Amino acid sequence: MNKIAHIGIAVKSLDEMIPFYRDQLGLTFEGKEQVNSEQVHVAFFKIGESAIELLEPLSEESPIAKYIEKKGEGIHHIAFDVDDVQKRLNHLKSEGIPLIHEKPKTGAHDSQVAFLHPKAANGVLFELCQQK
Amino acid sequence: MNKIAHIGIAVKSLDEMIPFYRDQLGLTFEGKEQVNSEQVHVAFFKIGESAIELLEPLSEESPIAKYIEKKGEGIHHIAFDVDDVQKRLNHLKSEGIPLIHEKPKTGAHDSQVAFLHPKAANGVLFELCQQK
Repeated sequence: MNKIAHIGIAVKSLDEMIPFYRDQLGLTFEGKEQVNSEQVHVAFFKIGESAIELLEPLSEESPIAKYIEKKGEGIHHIAFDVDDVQKRLNHLKSEGIPLIHEKPKTGAHDSQVAFLHPKAANGVLFELCQQK
Repeated sequence: MNKIAHIGIAVKSLDEMIPFYRDQLGLTFEGKEQVNSEQVHVAFFKIGESAIELLEPLSEESPIAKYIEKKGEGIHHIAFDVDDVQKRLNHLKSEGIPLIHEKPKTGAHDSQVAFLHPKAANGVLFELCQQK
């Protein structure tokens, strides 16, 4: 694992929360992006070598909509930057770690991403993220 | 904000979870520390410029014990590294941001730390952390 790529935070409304992160915390707002595979609208804020990623659901079918309904707004996942996501997945699988994805899919900024199953880490959702 | 100092994760048992973070994720284990002010036993794992901080409650009085009882194990807070925590607190207060601590207290590694109130960020608990 090279670094924390980002921390994903589930919110009901990007526009409502952007001022807090940008103006009050003073993080660098890097723009928005729509990620259709996850049915989310995403806002990025740079902090050091990492980022805060706010996630607003685009539809009821979004995993983020279901998360907010069940647990409320809050920290959704931690993403680690890795060089080779498939190699990492193979290694974790061989160690018996439960995975949501055994093969990576396309995430924000055309990265290759995969999630571990939260039961691997007593409820914490970890993502592996390989930059394009 | 300079960087993500650490992400705090509430766990019932450090010893049960250390192998996952050290051996399966492959993070660099940096040791344990007792933080009496928060009644927690802490394990640190280095990742890039940041760290993962596992927090095990030392007593029923620990805020982490109460968190686990209410919400279960999981991500508890995000800590930002800052140069001057008191200056940041003064600024946030002047902006009307609700704070748990208006003055910093001593955290792990003799850092000076303070928490924003989670209602400032729709349920996300942020810590400001000034290294010794």
